[in-house]
Amino acid sequence: MPGIFWVVPIAGIIAIIFAIFMARDVLKRSPGTPQMEEIGGMILEGAWAFLKRQYSTIGWLSIVVAVVVGVLVGVLGGHRGIEGITALGIGWRTAIAFIAGALCSAVSGFIGMIIAVKANARCANASRHSLKEAVNVALRGGAVPGFLIVALSLLGITVIYFAYGGANTPGIAPHLIVGFGFGASFVALFAQLGGGIYTKAADMGADLVGKIEAGIPEDDPRNAAVIADLVGDNVGDCAGRGADLFESTAAENIGAMILGITIYAITGNVAWILFPLVVRAFGIIASMVGILCVRIRGDENPMNALNRGFYVAIALSIVGMLITVPIMLDNWWLFWAGVVGILTSVVVVFITQYYTESRFRPTRSIAEASKTGPATNIVTGTAVGLETTLATAVVIGSALLLSYWMGTMTGLPGAGAFGTAVATMGMLMACPYILSEDTFGPITDNANGINTMTGAGEEVRRITDRLDAVGNTTKALTKGYAMVSAGLAAFLLFQAYLDRVAFLRGLDSFNVVNIARVDVFVGALLAVMLVFLFAGMAIRAVSSTASKIIEEVRRQFRESPGILTGETRPDYARAVDITARASLRGMIIPGLLPVLAPVIIGVLFKLSPHYDAAMVVAALLMVGTIAGIMMASFMNNSGGAWDNAKKYIEDNQLKDMAGNILGKGSPAHAAAVVGDTVGDPFKDTAGPSLHVLVKLLSTITLVMCPLFV
Amino acid sequence: MPGIFWVVPIAGIIAIIFAIFMARDVLKRSPGTPQMEEIGGMILEGAWAFLKRQYSTIGWLSIVVAVVVGVLVGVLGGHRGIEGITALGIGWRTAIAFIAGALCSAVSGFIGMIIAVKANARCANASRHSLKEAVNVALRGGAVPGFLIVALSLLGITVIYFAYGGANTPGIAPHLIVGFGFGASFVALFAQLGGGIYTKAADMGADLVGKIEAGIPEDDPRNAAVIADLVGDNVGDCAGRGADLFESTAAENIGAMILGITIYAITGNVAWILFPLVVRAFGIIASMVGILCVRIRGDENPMNALNRGFYVAIALSIVGMLITVPIMLDNWWLFWAGVVGILTSVVVVFITQYYTESRFRPTRSIAEASKTGPATNIVTGTAVGLETTLATAVVIGSALLLSYWMGTMTGLPGAGAFGTAVATMGMLMACPYILSEDTFGPITDNANGINTMTGAGEEVRRITDRLDAVGNTTKALTKGYAMVSAGLAAFLLFQAYLDRVAFLRGLDSFNVVNIARVDVFVGALLAVMLVFLFAGMAIRAVSSTASKIIEEVRRQFRESPGILTGETRPDYARAVDITARASLRGMIIPGLLPVLAPVIIGVLFKLSPHYDAAMVVAALLMVGTIAGIMMASFMNNSGGAWDNAKKYIEDNQLKDMAGNILGKGSPAHAAAVVGDTVGDPFKDTAGPSLHVLVKLLSTITLVMCPLFV
Repeated sequence: MPGIFWVVPIAGIIAIIFAIFMARDVLKRSPGTPQMEEIGGMILEGAWAFLKRQYSTIGWLSIVVAVVVGVLVGVLGGHRGIEGITALGIGWRTAIAFIAGALCSAVSGFIGMIIAVKANARCANASRHSLKEAVNVALRGGAVPGFLIVALSLLGITVIYFAYGGANTPGIAPHLIVGFGFGASFVALFAQLGGGIYTKAADMGADLVGKIEAGIPEDDPRNAAVIADLVGDNVGDCAGRGADLFESTAAENIGAMILGITIYAITGNVAWILFPLVVRAFGIIASMVGILCVRIRGDENPMNALNRGFYVAIALSIVGMLITVPIMLDNWWLFWAGVVGILTSVVVVFITQYYTESRFRPTRSIAEASKTGPATNIVTGTAVGLETTLATAVVIGSALLLSYWMGTMTGLPGAGAFGTAVATMGMLMACPYILSEDTFGPITDNANGINTMTGAGEEVRRITDRLDAVGNTTKALTKGYAMVSAGLAAFLLFQAYLDRVAFLRGLDSFNVVNIARVDVFVGALLAVMLVFLFAGMAIRAVSSTASKIIEEVRRQFRESPGILTGETRPDYARAVDITARASLRGMIIPGLLPVLAPVIIGVLFKLSPHYDAAMVVAALLMVGTIAGIMMASFMNNSGGAWDNAKKYIEDNQLKDMAGNILGKGSPAHAAAVVGDTVGDPFKDTAGPSLHVLVKLLSTITLVMCPLFV
Repeated sequence: MPGIFWVVPIAGIIAIIFAIFMARDVLKRSPGTPQMEEIGGMILEGAWAFLKRQYSTIGWLSIVVAVVVGVLVGVLGGHRGIEGITALGIGWRTAIAFIAGALCSAVSGFIGMIIAVKANARCANASRHSLKEAVNVALRGGAVPGFLIVALSLLGITVIYFAYGGANTPGIAPHLIVGFGFGASFVALFAQLGGGIYTKAADMGADLVGKIEAGIPEDDPRNAAVIADLVGDNVGDCAGRGADLFESTAAENIGAMILGITIYAITGNVAWILFPLVVRAFGIIASMVGILCVRIRGDENPMNALNRGFYVAIALSIVGMLITVPIMLDNWWLFWAGVVGILTSVVVVFITQYYTESRFRPTRSIAEASKTGPATNIVTGTAVGLETTLATAVVIGSALLLSYWMGTMTGLPGAGAFGTAVATMGMLMACPYILSEDTFGPITDNANGINTMTGAGEEVRRITDRLDAVGNTTKALTKGYAMVSAGLAAFLLFQAYLDRVAFLRGLDSFNVVNIARVDVFVGALLAVMLVFLFAGMAIRAVSSTASKIIEEVRRQFRESPGILTGETRPDYARAVDITARASLRGMIIPGLLPVLAPVIIGVLFKLSPHYDAAMVVAALLMVGTIAGIMMASFMNNSGGAWDNAKKYIEDNQLKDMAGNILGKGSPAHAAAVVGDTVGDPFKDTAGPSLHVLVKLLSTITLVMCPLFV
C-alpha cells in the first residue's frame, strides 16, 4: 500500500474533529430570546418527529431490500461466484454492505438536519448583532454536516473495503462493496423524495391557504402550517441533500475503484484502485481551508465572500491533484483530467448563476413576462428551464470527451474511462465546501422565518433577507453541482457496470451496448419514460400532500376563529403531523419505481433467449442517466429562475412602460408568485430526486447485475 | 412488377376524384349571411397573406438548402458514388428530389388551409339548420386535404421512384429519393413551427388582452386580434398538420422501401420494395369507405359517429393487409405484423381519450386542482402530462418488439426491422381518415367563432360548441397518432440509415451503435438536449410573438376609444400582419436548429479519427427520437388535458365541498384558464413540431449520410 494512503484516515479524522469544533462554536452561542428559542424548539420537535417516522419507514424497506438482494444475488443469480468466494458469499456480503451504506446515508441526513435546526435560532439571534456574525453561524453550522458526511463516506468505504479483504485481494474487494453504494442511494432517494415532498407541500400549502386565501403574510404565526414550512426546509434541504451527496460520493468512489482494477491487473500497482480515496482526502483538506478563509469585508454581498472561499478550495484541490497523481499514478495526462473535473465545478457555478440570478437576462425575462399574468410567466419560465439544458449538456459533454481523451493518451488499456473517473474525483474534491454552502441555505431561510415570526426590527430583517437570497443562490449552485457531477460520473459508473458484466460472464471485456438492436432500443425508450414518469409522480405527490395541509389549515381557521385575530395559537403540531404522514405516503410509489423498474425490465428481457438482458439494462442505465440529467437541469433551473424572478419584483426592480414600480401586491407580483409556487416542486422535489435516481440506477444495476448476466 | 401494383395509381387517382367531389359538395353550399361571408373573407385574406409570406421565406430557405445539400453530397462527400451513378449524380438527384418533396409538402399545407377556410362559414351556416348537416360540412371539408395530401405523397414517391430508374434498378432508386423525404420534412417543420407559433401567439395574445385586461368575451369582434386568432387555427392546425402528415407518410414510406432492398437482393422479388406503396393504396380505399359511413343517429355525440367510421376504416385496413401480404410477400407473420400496426392506432385513440377527456380521472384531477388556484392547476397538469409517457412508451415498445419478432420469424435476413416497417405501414393505412378528422377540428372551431362574432342564437351556438369540443378531441387524437406512428417508424428509419451507411461504406452490414463509446454517448446526450432546447425555443417564440400582439391590441384600444364601445371597427388586418411577421421571425432559429445540429455535430466528430461520426449521428438520431416522442407525449397530452379541464368547469361540472357549482367566472375557472393558456404552446406549437423534428432528424441524416461515413 502506498504511503500516501495514510492521508485518507488522517483527513477523515481531521474532518470529524473540524466538524465537532464547528458544532461547538455554533452551539455555544445564544439561541436568542425565549420566544426564538421556543420556535426553534418547535421546529426541532417537528423535524425530529418527521425523521423518526421517515427513518422507520425507510428502515423497514431497507431491511426487506437487503434480504431480497442478498437472496437474489446469492441464490437465484446462478453465477459462479468470484475466485474463492461462493455466490452465497457474495450475497451476504452485498446485503451487509447495503445495510452499512443505508445506515451511513441515514446518519448523514440526520446529522445535517439536527445541526441545521440548532443553528437556525442562533443565526437569527446573531443577525441582531451583525451580518458578519450571522454569516459565520450559518456557514459554520453548514460545515458540520458538510464535513461529517464526506468523512463518513470516505471512512465508511475504506473500512468496508479492508473488511472485505482489500488488503489481500484488491482486485476483488471493490466488486464486493457495491452494495454499500446501493444502500446509500436507496436511503438517499427516499430521504430526498420524502423530505422534498414534505418541504414543498408545506410551503405550497402554507402559501396558498395563508397568503392567497386568508391574506396574511408569509411566515405569519397565525398560519397553522408555518412551523411545518420551517420544518420542511430542514428535512428537505438538509436531510435530503445530505443523503444525496453522501451517496454521490460513495457510488462514484466505488465505481472509480472498480475501473482501477483493470489497470491494477496489468500494472500490479494497487494505487490505481486506492487513488479515488486519496484524492478525496485531499479534497477535504482543501475545502477546510476554503471554509476558514471566508471573511466578509465591510458591507459586501456575502456571496462574494463565499465565492472567495470556494476559489481557495478549488486552487488547493488542484494542488492536491498535483501531489496525488504524480506520486500514485505517475502520469501527467491524468493530472490534467483531474483539473478538467475541478474546473468543471467552477463552470457550473457560473452557468447556474447566469440562469437563476436576476442580474441576467433569463430570470429578468420571466419577471417581464409576469406583467401579462401567470400564464406568460409560466410559459417563459418553462422555456428558460428547457433552454438551460444546452449549457449543461455542453459542459458535461466537453468534460467527458476531454478527460476521456486524456485518459487514452496514457496508453493504458481502459484508461479512457479512468480519465473520466479522475475528472469526477477532481470535481468531487470541493464537495465538503459545496455541502457546507448548501446547508447555509436552509439555516438562513429559517433564521429569516424566525425573525419574521418574532417580529424582529427592520434592520435585522434586512440582514436575514439578504442572507436568505444568498442561501437561494447557494442551494441552486449545489443542485447544479450535484447534477453535473452525476453526468460526469455517469460514464465511469456505466463502465463499472460493463466491467462487472464482463467479470461475471468471464469475458475479457464487455463494451458494446448496441441501441440498434430492438431490445436495447426499447430499453432506452423505457429509460426516458422512467425519468418522465418519476418526475410526474414526484410532482403529483407534492400537490396531493399540499391539498391535505390546505384542508387542515382551513379547518383550524374555521373551527377556531380566534386564530386569525391572534387570540388563539394554531395547532402547529397537528399540521406538522399531517404533513409528515401525507408526504411519507406520497414517497413510497415514486421511490419504489426506480428500484423495481430496472430489475423487472432486466428480468423480463432475460426470459427470452433472443434478448441480451444485460445490454438492455445497460441502455436503460445510460439513456436514463442522460434523460435524468436533462430533466433535472430543466426542473432545477426553471424553479430557481421563477423564485428569483419573484424576488426581483419584490425588490421593486420591475417597472411598467411609464416607469412605475410594479412591486409587492401588483398583478405582476401575483403572477410571479404563481410561477414560484409551480417551481417549488420542480426545483426542490423532482429535480434533486432525479440526481439520486440517476445514481440509484447505477448502483442498483451494479448490484443486481448477476440477475441479468 | 407485380400486377397488384396498379392499385397504387388507381387509388391515388380515386383519392383525388373523391377529394374534388367532396370539395364541390362543400363549396356548393351557402356561405351564410353577408356578415358571415365577410368574416370568412377576412379569415381567408389573413390566412392567405400569412401563407404567402411564410412560403416565400420557406421557399428561399429550401432553395438554399437544396443547393447546399446537392453540393455537399455531390462534391464534398468524397464517396464513390453508387453503381453507375457518380457522386455528383447523386448530388443533383438528391437536390431535385428535395425540391419536389418540399413543393409537395407546401402544396399539401396550402390545400388543407384553403379548403378549411372555405368550409368554416359554410359549417357555421349549416349549424343553423342541423347538427347533422354541420358535421357533414366539417367532415367533408376535412376530407379534401385528408385525401389530397395522402394521394400527393403516394403519387409523388411513385413518380420520382420511377423517374430515378426504379423500373430497371429497384435496388438503387430508393437511395436516390431520400431527398424527397428530407424536402418534405424540411418544409413541414417550418410550416408546423411557423403556423404553430402564429396560432398560439394569436390565441394567447387575444385572450390575455381581451378576456383578462379588457374583460370582453372570447371571439368578441371588438378585439383586434380576433381575426388573427381565427386565421391561426387554419394556418397552424390545417396547414401545419397537413405538411406534418405528408412528410410522415413520405419519409416512412421511403424508409420502408430502403429496408425492402436487403430482402429484394436475396429473393430477387421487387414486391419487397413496392409493398409499402401498395399497402398505403389500400389504406386510401379503406379510409374513403370509412368517411362515407359516418352518419349521425339522432342527437348522439358526433364523436360516436366519427369513431364508427374509424372502426370501419380499421376493419377494411385489415382486409387490405390480408389481400396485399399474401400476394406480395407470401408470409403470414408479416400479415400479423401489419395487424399489430393497425391495432396500435386503435389503442392510441383510447389512451389519448383517457388522458385528455374530462370523463376520466386525469383531466378531472386538474379541474379539482384549479380550486386552489393556478399554481396547483399547473403542477397537476404537468404531473398528468409527464405520466402519459408511460402509456405511450409501453404501446410503442410493445408494438416494436412484437412486430420485430414477427419479422424475424419469417427467417429472412433483416426481416426483423422489415416487420416494424410493415407495422408502420399498417398504422399509416388509416392516415387519410385521421387527417380528415383532424381538419374537422379547426373548421368547427372557426364555425363556432363565426357564430359568436355574428351573434347567432343560443341553439345554434350549442351545436357548434358541441362540435368544437369534438374537434378538440379529434385534434388530440391526431397528435397521438402522429406521435406513436413516429415512434413506430423510428426503428425502420434508423435501420434505413444504418443500411445506407453500410451501402456507402461498402460493408455487408453496419448494425452496431455502441453508446458505451464516449463519442456515441456524448451524441446521445446532445440528442436529448436538442429536444429540450428545441421545445424551449418553440415555446419562447410563442410568448414573444404574443407580447407583440398584446402591444398592438392595447395600442388600438388606447388610440381608438370607440373600439370598446363598439362604434369603431378595430384594424384586424394590422393585427394579422403583425402576428404573421413576428411568428415568421420566431420560427427561423428553432427551425434551423434541428437542421443544422446533426450536420454540425456529425462533421465535428468526423474531424477526429478516434471518433466514428456515422455512429455518433446514429445515436443522435435514435436517442433524439426517443426523447422527442416522450417530450411530445408530455406536451400534447398535458395541453389537451388543461384545455378540457377548463371546458369541464365551463360546463358547470366542478363543485365545491358544499355542492355549489364552480363555473365560468369562479376563481377555479380563472385558474383553469391559466392552465389552458400555458397548455396552448405545449400542445399546438412545441408538441406537433417535435413529431416533425423526429422525422426531420431521420431524413436529414439519411440524406447527409455521405458526410459522416
